[in-house]
Amino acid sequence: MEASPAPAAGQAPAPAEPEPRPRRTGYRRLPVQQRREQLIAVALELFASRPPEEVGLDDVAEAAGASRPLVYRYFAGGKQQLYEAALRSAAQELTSRFAVPVSGTPSEQLSAVLDGYFAFVVEHEAGYSALLRGGSVVETARTSAIVDDVRRVALRRTLRHLGVREAGPRLTLLVRSWIAVVEGASLSWLDEGRALPVTELRDWLVDQFTAMAAATALHDPQTAEVLAGVLALEGPRARRAERLRAVLARP
Amino acid sequence: MEASPAPAAGQAPAPAEPEPRPRRTGYRRLPVQQRREQLIAVALELFASRPPEEVGLDDVAEAAGASRPLVYRYFAGGKQQLYEAALRSAAQELTSRFAVPVSGTPSEQLSAVLDGYFAFVVEHEAGYSALLRGGSVVETARTSAIVDDVRRVALRRTLRHLGVREAGPRLTLLVRSWIAVVEGASLSWLDEGRALPVTELRDWLVDQFTAMAAATALHDPQTAEVLAGVLALEGPRARRAERLRAVLARP
Repeated sequence: MEASPAPAAGQAPAPAEPEPRPRRTGYRRLPVQQRREQLIAVALELFASRPPEEVGLDDVAEAAGASRPLVYRYFAGGKQQLYEAALRSAAQELTSRFAVPVSGTPSEQLSAVLDGYFAFVVEHEAGYSALLRGGSVVETARTSAIVDDVRRVALRRTLRHLGVREAGPRLTLLVRSWIAVVEGASLSWLDEGRALPVTELRDWLVDQFTAMAAATALHDPQTAEVLAGVLALEGPRARRAERLRAVLARP
Repeated sequence: MEASPAPAAGQAPAPAEPEPRPRRTGYRRLPVQQRREQLIAVALELFASRPPEEVGLDDVAEAAGASRPLVYRYFAGGKQQLYEAALRSAAQELTSRFAVPVSGTPSEQLSAVLDGYFAFVVEHEAGYSALLRGGSVVETARTSAIVDDVRRVALRRTLRHLGVREAGPRLTLLVRSWIAVVEGASLSWLDEGRALPVTELRDWLVDQFTAMAAATALHDPQTAEVLAGVLALEGPRARRAERLRAVLARP
């Protein structure tokens, strides 16, 4: 816990604009809410491009054209609180990209969502890596909870899109596992300097979804039903499932 | 960083047995190395059954029949250092269970390794969860590195067992992803109070390996070759692959 607990980000009725009196510096005055958002946006950009260890409150102040005391007045918990506010903002942005396009086959729709996800990963490369890799100095039970919330939204949206009202434990495990594969694959991809074309990684993940659903269908009637429905919707272009069947044939 | 950095665990040429002089307490004297191992074993047991937040150095001292100053003489970095030593010991124990039995089909061998893994997960339930879930107070870049080492050993052993000398990026991604699925599935299983029979979870993971390899084979000749080899070794009992093919048939 910080020595002086700050109000939770996102709900803070920000203080009356506490801009320092203009002295020799040329700090711009900004309305309260706008300043708050600006600080978060600046922090987000810094945390996206450098590991959190290497971002200081002074960097944020400088990039925002603000003083260090001003940043502290908005974020009394200092860097940790600012980091969490930036993370919440990033999480919101990410989940907004989970919207599934209304047209297309299931695999086209899944591809579109993955494209949005990878665009986010690229934009926030350093922060994404640091956060999901674990062991970062700014990682706490609170930041883990924010990440878990994103996973929960991804799970809920996927199940809803599959037309599932109440998912049994095996179908839930399938979707959760696939989400873990997406995360792990993104991290490996970043580690290797994005050597693999992103479209190939995306197509691999779509194929993984089908394959993992097939393996789960062997254990669970609900997943079997969902998979049959998805394959039927793929229509005449369901070549991937046919190819999956081919590689599974005994030599 | 701790105020007084302690020597790295595992290499510490332990101090001359610094047992407190017997006063009114009945502390047992133990040889240096034995005491060190005993403290780690006791810590491991405590961290296995309670989240790290709830384990104090006093608990370790009490359970070990030792004084708090004695524990500090062996682990000057305090709880964090003791936790890391216990984690290293657990990691060693876990990787020793990755040994693959010499006989059996590939899926029988994989099943045997998974049985060993789940036995470990059950024995170290609280510590396993806390560590892999992230956000624990004792989590640092060092503890993350220990976990990553375990994953690396699992990757290497799996590839070696598949007869792969030099794995390309896609085959590596496949095995890494499957390991992530194993971890995620273990955590979900613990979360749900181990409601699913462990044998079913294990069989699901074996099927996932086949299915994920099939999806990767669509993108990678090396994986296609490995998968064909594995399926050939399954012999006449390769029913699972046949069933996978069946659920992938278009309705």
